[in-house]
Amino acid sequence: MAITLFDLAGADPALRFSPYCWRTRMALAHKGLAVETIPWRFADKSRIAPYGSEKVPVIVDGERAVGDSWAIAEYLEDTYPERPSLFGGSSGRAHARFINAWADSVINPAVGRLLILDIYAQLDPGDWAYFRASREARFGQTLEAVAAGRGQRLRALREAFAPVRSVLSHQPWLGGAAPSYADHILFGTLQWARCISRFELLATDDPLTEWRGRMLGLFDGLGQSAVTV
Amino acid sequence: MAITLFDLAGADPALRFSPYCWRTRMALAHKGLAVETIPWRFADKSRIAPYGSEKVPVIVDGERAVGDSWAIAEYLEDTYPERPSLFGGSSGRAHARFINAWADSVINPAVGRLLILDIYAQLDPGDWAYFRASREARFGQTLEAVAAGRGQRLRALREAFAPVRSVLSHQPWLGGAAPSYADHILFGTLQWARCISRFELLATDDPLTEWRGRMLGLFDGLGQSAVTV
Repeated sequence: MAITLFDLAGADPALRFSPYCWRTRMALAHKGLAVETIPWRFADKSRIAPYGSEKVPVIVDGERAVGDSWAIAEYLEDTYPERPSLFGGSSGRAHARFINAWADSVINPAVGRLLILDIYAQLDPGDWAYFRASREARFGQTLEAVAAGRGQRLRALREAFAPVRSVLSHQPWLGGAAPSYADHILFGTLQWARCISRFELLATDDPLTEWRGRMLGLFDGLGQSAVTV
Repeated sequence: MAITLFDLAGADPALRFSPYCWRTRMALAHKGLAVETIPWRFADKSRIAPYGSEKVPVIVDGERAVGDSWAIAEYLEDTYPERPSLFGGSSGRAHARFINAWADSVINPAVGRLLILDIYAQLDPGDWAYFRASREARFGQTLEAVAAGRGQRLRALREAFAPVRSVLSHQPWLGGAAPSYADHILFGTLQWARCISRFELLATDDPLTEWRGRMLGLFDGLGQSAVTV
């Protein structure tokens, strides 16, 4: 039986853009596990409340439900150890947690800020009030003020990717010789931008662009075939 | 026969403060390998030139010489695989490279900037001209201008440690249940500051302070017993 994934969607239910849901999509594909996605909107909190979660991704695997992308990755690794490994052992997992925390605390807030009006524009109208109120509370500013100064902020974001560039100058994937969950973490961020916006985060000659191209082709082009705006 | 380590020293030859040399000291201790350190100054470039290096750390292990802290860690892991692992396998190593790149590109430049006059003050007078010229060229400013605004920069540095705090809220070490080379990477940075300066990088209640305390105690208190200013 396929695993069910509650997956953040826009007004177009085929538009799936959450960076955290993308981590889970990639992790499921990495494990070769079938998935059935259910488009989910912020207004649908009651649909995942029975699983003890207020946010997506949430997966339901038979009797088990798991929320939070990191917890899902650990669940998949521990429940399906005979399938291709996401972490490559306990040290690989421990160190990947740092990459996860870096993406969550440094990169995703910066990208979210750059994209915030693009995201807003693609949401289902029923999500507008919630999104505006929750994000304006988080940033302490209107969405429009959060989005201002995009050129300057883009430069800072590109600088923040410096450690990734350094790693990719030594090895083809963050995971080393093959992609690992570390790659899926960062890919989720770039796929978020790619799906929700035409604003390009990466310069053409950035090594991340080449790496993203390879990520888009993984798992029969799962990322490549995603609906974009 | 003990491994030789060329180790950056101040005017006091017992003062050893390089963050990269500290990574190597910790890696050698982690592997349980005996080491004989040779105090090295910037003016001593000719002493390591025969080993193909312009900077320390450089280790000499019998017939082999290796420079660059990351290359040394890989050398030790590959040459002494039967001793306690630094990386915990290939994924652990691949992901640790990200942590290394993050420390090198984000953290160490920020800390170096905070400490630059403290470092200068402790150097052997024979190193002053080289240090001033090379660092002023790197920053495009006088050392005094680089050091200005320390309070504001300290706040930014503490924010930059956010991913570490997040990881330590889930596991005792960056390496997971036990310290790995990832811990030694970051410890090198904090030990640099601890040895060369009385300027405290961490707040008392920062989880990094507690972690640093545990790091100082490893390997019979190797870090704890270091000479400080």
